[in-house]
Amino acid sequence: MTVLLVFSFCAAQAEEGMWTFDNFPTKPVYEKYGFEASPIWLEHVRQSAARLAGGCSGSFVSSSGLILTNHHCAHRCIEQLSNAKKDFVAKGFYAKTNAEEVRCPEIEINRLVQIIDVTSEIQSATAKLTGEAFNKAQKAEMSKLEKECSASSDKVRCDVVTLYHGGRYNLYKYQRYQDVRLVFAPEFAIAFFGGDPDNFTFPRYDLDMAMLRVYEDGKPLQNKDYFKWSKEPAKDGDLSFVVGHPGNTSRLYTMADLETLRNTKIIQALTYLSEVRGLLTEYSKRSPEQKRIAKDHLFGVENSLKALKGRYAVLLDKRIMGDKEKAENEFRQRVNGASDLKKAYGDAWEMNEKANIDLRNMYARMSTLESNFGSRLFEIAKTLVRAGDELPKKNEVRYREYADSRLPQLKQSLFSKAPIYSDFETAMLEFNLTKAREVLGPDDPAVKALLGKKSPADVAKALVQGTKLKDIKLRQSLYDGGKKAITASKDPMIQFALLMDPYSRKVRDKFEDDIEPNLKLSAEKIAQAHFAVEGTNTYPDATFTLRVSYGQIKGYDENGVFVPPITDYEGAFQRNTGADPFALPASWINAKSKLNMQTPLNFCATADIIGGNSGSPVINRNGEIIGLIFDGNIQSLGGDYIYDATQNRAVAVHSAGIIEALDKIYGAKRIKDELLSSANATVTTSVH
Amino acid sequence: MTVLLVFSFCAAQAEEGMWTFDNFPTKPVYEKYGFEASPIWLEHVRQSAARLAGGCSGSFVSSSGLILTNHHCAHRCIEQLSNAKKDFVAKGFYAKTNAEEVRCPEIEINRLVQIIDVTSEIQSATAKLTGEAFNKAQKAEMSKLEKECSASSDKVRCDVVTLYHGGRYNLYKYQRYQDVRLVFAPEFAIAFFGGDPDNFTFPRYDLDMAMLRVYEDGKPLQNKDYFKWSKEPAKDGDLSFVVGHPGNTSRLYTMADLETLRNTKIIQALTYLSEVRGLLTEYSKRSPEQKRIAKDHLFGVENSLKALKGRYAVLLDKRIMGDKEKAENEFRQRVNGASDLKKAYGDAWEMNEKANIDLRNMYARMSTLESNFGSRLFEIAKTLVRAGDELPKKNEVRYREYADSRLPQLKQSLFSKAPIYSDFETAMLEFNLTKAREVLGPDDPAVKALLGKKSPADVAKALVQGTKLKDIKLRQSLYDGGKKAITASKDPMIQFALLMDPYSRKVRDKFEDDIEPNLKLSAEKIAQAHFAVEGTNTYPDATFTLRVSYGQIKGYDENGVFVPPITDYEGAFQRNTGADPFALPASWINAKSKLNMQTPLNFCATADIIGGNSGSPVINRNGEIIGLIFDGNIQSLGGDYIYDATQNRAVAVHSAGIIEALDKIYGAKRIKDELLSSANATVTTSVH
Repeated sequence: MTVLLVFSFCAAQAEEGMWTFDNFPTKPVYEKYGFEASPIWLEHVRQSAARLAGGCSGSFVSSSGLILTNHHCAHRCIEQLSNAKKDFVAKGFYAKTNAEEVRCPEIEINRLVQIIDVTSEIQSATAKLTGEAFNKAQKAEMSKLEKECSASSDKVRCDVVTLYHGGRYNLYKYQRYQDVRLVFAPEFAIAFFGGDPDNFTFPRYDLDMAMLRVYEDGKPLQNKDYFKWSKEPAKDGDLSFVVGHPGNTSRLYTMADLETLRNTKIIQALTYLSEVRGLLTEYSKRSPEQKRIAKDHLFGVENSLKALKGRYAVLLDKRIMGDKEKAENEFRQRVNGASDLKKAYGDAWEMNEKANIDLRNMYARMSTLESNFGSRLFEIAKTLVRAGDELPKKNEVRYREYADSRLPQLKQSLFSKAPIYSDFETAMLEFNLTKAREVLGPDDPAVKALLGKKSPADVAKALVQGTKLKDIKLRQSLYDGGKKAITASKDPMIQFALLMDPYSRKVRDKFEDDIEPNLKLSAEKIAQAHFAVEGTNTYPDATFTLRVSYGQIKGYDENGVFVPPITDYEGAFQRNTGADPFALPASWINAKSKLNMQTPLNFCATADIIGGNSGSPVINRNGEIIGLIFDGNIQSLGGDYIYDATQNRAVAVHSAGIIEALDKIYGAKRIKDELLSSANATVTTSVH
Repeated sequence: MTVLLVFSFCAAQAEEGMWTFDNFPTKPVYEKYGFEASPIWLEHVRQSAARLAGGCSGSFVSSSGLILTNHHCAHRCIEQLSNAKKDFVAKGFYAKTNAEEVRCPEIEINRLVQIIDVTSEIQSATAKLTGEAFNKAQKAEMSKLEKECSASSDKVRCDVVTLYHGGRYNLYKYQRYQDVRLVFAPEFAIAFFGGDPDNFTFPRYDLDMAMLRVYEDGKPLQNKDYFKWSKEPAKDGDLSFVVGHPGNTSRLYTMADLETLRNTKIIQALTYLSEVRGLLTEYSKRSPEQKRIAKDHLFGVENSLKALKGRYAVLLDKRIMGDKEKAENEFRQRVNGASDLKKAYGDAWEMNEKANIDLRNMYARMSTLESNFGSRLFEIAKTLVRAGDELPKKNEVRYREYADSRLPQLKQSLFSKAPIYSDFETAMLEFNLTKAREVLGPDDPAVKALLGKKSPADVAKALVQGTKLKDIKLRQSLYDGGKKAITASKDPMIQFALLMDPYSRKVRDKFEDDIEPNLKLSAEKIAQAHFAVEGTNTYPDATFTLRVSYGQIKGYDENGVFVPPITDYEGAFQRNTGADPFALPASWINAKSKLNMQTPLNFCATADIIGGNSGSPVINRNGEIIGLIFDGNIQSLGGDYIYDATQNRAVAVHSAGIIEALDKIYGAKRIKDELLSSANATVTTSVH
């Protein structure tokens, strides 16, 4: 692949960039496309965007709180609302009336209302501090700022966000919505048509969409800002914008950071996830019900695995990594060549390398002991045990996830009504306990405490059979009763979590006190060195905060063959074999004669996206929905480290394909009308 | 770890080396240990060694064909002789009389009788040839030499062996024994005490031993040469020799070869094997019988996985690989600095790099299409289909595994009576067909041919249910009937193999014609360059041919703690938890009061070994058995690329521990007497 590299804070190449809303590259976009994004346009777009706190993007698409996102972003909710008799994953879901819309147990939606620069607050709180003192002061200041910002309201969410790895700190203030209901989802078979084999490829034929609705005080939210539906279907060459929440990129990582990814984190994840995949694949054969139960988890595992394999190949690429190393060395020489720069930043890389070596040495142990052993029941027990210890402390000194500003999300998860399946819990717990013994060795004191003289199978079985934590009222009473109730509890899972906690705290504290401060301090220094040398006219690495990317709907060459950018319904029927994962659902087969086969179904565009952008709206100059991001092609997977305009493509469901399906396949007139009612009015735009 | 590196053909450091019998480092051993290995000593040792053709080592330990090897080397046989009612893996096996000794369906034992240098024959056959012509001529010459050597006798096996990656070619002539019977095996629980968690670690407490017996004409073989049992138990500091068949090392690989391992071969194997492991772990939960069926396979997968993880860590090690790269660059400069060397060898590295790039690009496709899809039934069908095409050709132009000299082994496998389990076959075939679709993509023509419009599950089920290839007579008649019988067969697995063969041949031929010749030619040139510059006083990379290593029984430091070199029975009882894999079998618990707890059980030594050495005898200066290699410690895994004398340790069962168990736990007096009867006589040695 022909890769154009950007290694540092230098001006990005055309199309590259996941831009923050306060630093949109208005001028380059105007120069290339003749479109000027006005402040009003940007403000409207920002207010119409939505974030699914669990790790996805979405958008408001009506004045009544209707949210458009991906099926795979709502998959867990759809599964949680299903049971052995009603399988909405397999059969799809459509609420014919508002009354039929059902609340998702664990979805939280955020709308960004304000960005506040708190760089100076954070930096003065940590000035001249190092090590443990630095990290504690920084976290305390973050928790303090977040608490002040949310003013203890559950409806406001405030997160301090680290941008440019410490070059900037911003406070992101969101409206928080926890009453989110499922409105529509097609069958999994078409949402993920082509399954794992077609995942991260193009051309595609997926209706990877779901509709949710935000409720407030028991009624649909009434909202002023939302994206209207496009009147004209988007076509080859059109300028498009992606508005969403890319989760994480590592383009500004040091070579030592990348080596930690390559030699420690990703290789460990690849073998772990591969093993889980094999296990769940075979587990799914126990019965149709077990298959249903494992499906969401297996889907997530396969998706991560394919993405990580793509990323890993880039980390192993001698040329790409060699170029990155060269750029880093040159920049270091430049810093060391100027005495003021050298004094201020010269020691940052060495500190970063040392911290990375320390991290690699303890990573396997930390990631094992601070995990949830793949078990919801253990996760609940651990959360209760930690809450008992953390909540009595002052807000500023708690573990960050127990800070006041984080409690609404924690409670939503802790008291979720989502079903928990004993058989699946036992299988996952046994597997992860076995894995812990493998990673740490049978003679590790934590392993001895975990297992005693029993096998992982026996321990897992006894814990899952014995615990009563499926009972939400019990969880509530233990949470309310605090440490006293927890330590008095005879529940075996609580006791197990109590037993484990000293080991997991110890390794976490070691990381937070000894290693993390040096990683942060060195990254902050390096970011400042780049600002000092190259200025600030660029975008920060992705941090699951709202960004806007832009580009064109555009095909590309792959192994000498041109891949056109838009697919249609006809292609989906051609790809249908009748066997999973290439089997179109019955609803499609039955509706075939009614369909316009030339309706666009999916398209690809040059916009720069990454995981977390799933569910992002694709909009045109008018701010109208023309598509729904659900994937990137295989060439986009290196996007974690580099952006390659020649082949990197975002993959989206086409807006016209969505309407065709709602109308002719699913008879979802109510929703179609709600979407299209907006299409007659035009939003305020500045089109040149 | 403190690594001392050897990058090239320079003289090896003390203890390093897997020496061929015609180049034993007599002088350095004498200088360090005062022991001179006489030609008679070496000859006797060579004649007493045995190879298990499937991938292990062993030794003759009585004059009646008794063979000592590892339990894990005989594991497959033990499993093949078991069934749902009689589980010799779980319960152990002991033949109280010769009559109770049972033939292993697929074990072949080789005894090396002669090594003939055929370098000039091979090199003149290929002189001035390149590409496809080079490879074809080389293979033809190898098949011709092997056929002449074995004189068409099934009892003689002749293999041309490539040493120093083409610096030397030797013809290894073996006596071939295919009637090999199981005599004794302890329970799996003690053979592999500690299981995967303790695998590749030390201290250890395993009785990883099994006894086989070679038969000739229906009677126990009468053999002159064999190892006698040691009279004195070996102790800390003793000089020891390991005589066995290390399978494969890559110490002389180029950087491009290593990059292919790192970026393509090993990473693919790691994720594949991890997935199989998860699958088989869960498959084993279907029922105790499924667990029994999957056990041998799962054991192999876990063993490979742990070994590969250790090797991979070395390939990712920047310092070790950086040093190797530096050494390669320096050597290349040295070659290019002398005009005669440059002319003769200067282009080898570039050719090697290019061939490696070509290999990486086609490796996933080749390894998928030339695999057996994890299915014995498919393997049988493929072998029959290929035999139909290959056997009518002249010996010299066949695929090498169909050359006359290889047919005895091929037939032993093809007509093996080992049971085949439909359920397991279906699971593995489905998995591997799914994997093929994943690796090649659903649009690959081979995948379309494989699956048509069906799912992998349906294809696998139909093939396994429909085939009659479990019937050995059917296999025989199809083999005898040749291509005509094959193409006329209605057996669905045969038809499937016929369908696949054009695709798999195409990719294999591409490799053999376009890529392999350049890999070989370049490696041959590089080897010759090293001989030219540095001489020949070193050992070649391992090639599953007989080697002798030497060293001391010796502990080592690990994370600042000294690990003593010898464990005892008491340690085994201390490590017993009662839960698998730390559960001593009932026979041990019951015999506890009779045992001398201070009897040595396992030991570690500095001898340089690697996979394939499993089952190797460890002998003392007198040529007496003092131990039985069954593992290396975790630090030995990098031995594929480097040897580190400070921590690399071979791990063995102690000879005294074997006798204690045979005598007091298993009541195997017949075998104990057979072993010890020899200990009164002393073999011819030269002790200084």
